Amino acid sequence: MNLLLLQPEQQLDESHWRLDERQARHVQSVLGLTEGQPCKAGLLDGPQGTCIIESIKNKEITVSFKADSQNVEPLKLSLLLALPRPKMLKRILIDATSLGIKRIVLINSWKVDKSYWQTPNLKADLLREKMLLGLEQARDTQLPELLLAPRFRPFVEDRLDHWAGDGPRILAHPGDHAPLPRNLPGPACLAIGPEGGWTPFEVEMLCDRGFQCHAFGRRILRVETALPALVGGMMQLP
Amino acid sequence: MNLLLLQPEQQLDESHWRLDERQARHVQSVLGLTEGQPCKAGLLDGPQGTCIIESIKNKEITVSFKADSQNVEPLKLSLLLALPRPKMLKRILIDATSLGIKRIVLINSWKVDKSYWQTPNLKADLLREKMLLGLEQARDTQLPELLLAPRFRPFVEDRLDHWAGDGPRILAHPGDHAPLPRNLPGPACLAIGPEGGWTPFEVEMLCDRGFQCHAFGRRILRVETALPALVGGMMQLP
Repeated sequence: MNLLLLQPEQQLDESHWRLDERQARHVQSVLGLTEGQPCKAGLLDGPQGTCIIESIKNKEITVSFKADSQNVEPLKLSLLLALPRPKMLKRILIDATSLGIKRIVLINSWKVDKSYWQTPNLKADLLREKMLLGLEQARDTQLPELLLAPRFRPFVEDRLDHWAGDGPRILAHPGDHAPLPRNLPGPACLAIGPEGGWTPFEVEMLCDRGFQCHAFGRRILRVETALPALVGGMMQLP
Repeated sequence: MNLLLLQPEQQLDESHWRLDERQARHVQSVLGLTEGQPCKAGLLDGPQGTCIIESIKNKEITVSFKADSQNVEPLKLSLLLALPRPKMLKRILIDATSLGIKRIVLINSWKVDKSYWQTPNLKADLLREKMLLGLEQARDTQLPELLLAPRFRPFVEDRLDHWAGDGPRILAHPGDHAPLPRNLPGPACLAIGPEGGWTPFEVEMLCDRGFQCHAFGRRILRVETALPALVGGMMQLP
């Protein structure tokens, strides 16, 4: 936790917030802060700044907050990601958020196991919690927009073109393709398939919406390894 | 497991190998192969090829192997990594290996918790097991060389210059530095610090051995996210 991320429901009055349990534990056990000491903080979807520990009573901590800096710039990359297996979804959301991605669609694919869509990890509050962890890690305050697309074809046919917006649309795909573009300022859109890859039909549908296949080495990487490697490879990180 | 990686101790005669328990389970439960069917395989530190399931008796599987292709090219990047917390070491070794890194030093740093050096995860056979998982993932057969350097200064003073070899020596470090070099063919050497970063003294010692600081965005990434992002950013992946 590199930032105390203060949420609207924690606000007590104009300038005071109550830390939640996890934040309070971190402030006391990891940072060892006492009353009067400062700590980096930010308002969710707002500015960054400094908070002062105003009072510690039992395990309840009240802080004041003063904005003193702009938030870090977002990464101008939209991510279309085949729903990963539940165990890895948590880590991938934390990673994607800490890398600065602000627009994510988790989409179905032929090779996504149907059971993945039934997992409790897909509940909105759990998805949000993982993205908050990514923000705390990267000292960022702007929560990504996350969409679920449990049906591939309707999303790709009806919504993808608008959603993907301007800029190159990159499909990382094994085979004899042009190398990955490098050092893009963004905007750009990146599609990452499931383990085993998109089917030829899915690739064709994505290419019909302006995606182009690019090669990224011959190795087969796990999605959780490929995501940061691709993002670091193709984007300028702000 | 994208490759059955056959090890010397599994060899029965000139052309036959016995699968270990995990491989046998994978062949039966995940791949659903039966006698006579082929599967991608490779000899540890040797060529790749195809194995044929020769016999399945109870849970014991014997295969024949025929080499038919060269191994994938290694990534010409040496990694000097401050020892990560035990929980993450496993994942980082799998990732580094699957990305194709062949030379790794796990080194101490002021901010590495001393207890990390006592963890059972550092036993040679467990480290090796994680790297084998990375090889299986990426369809590679060449095991990385892994060194432990539990004392920073003696390693850096006496061995680092020789170990790091030719090519640029990159220190990813927050601050106002030149941007990360891009798309290097290698050889190159990358130093990644612990959570909280190298101390100024450590940075100075590394710079005395030819390392140069480079910036990689303003965000604070976890080591396990930073590693693939940096590798994907600075290297051409073969």
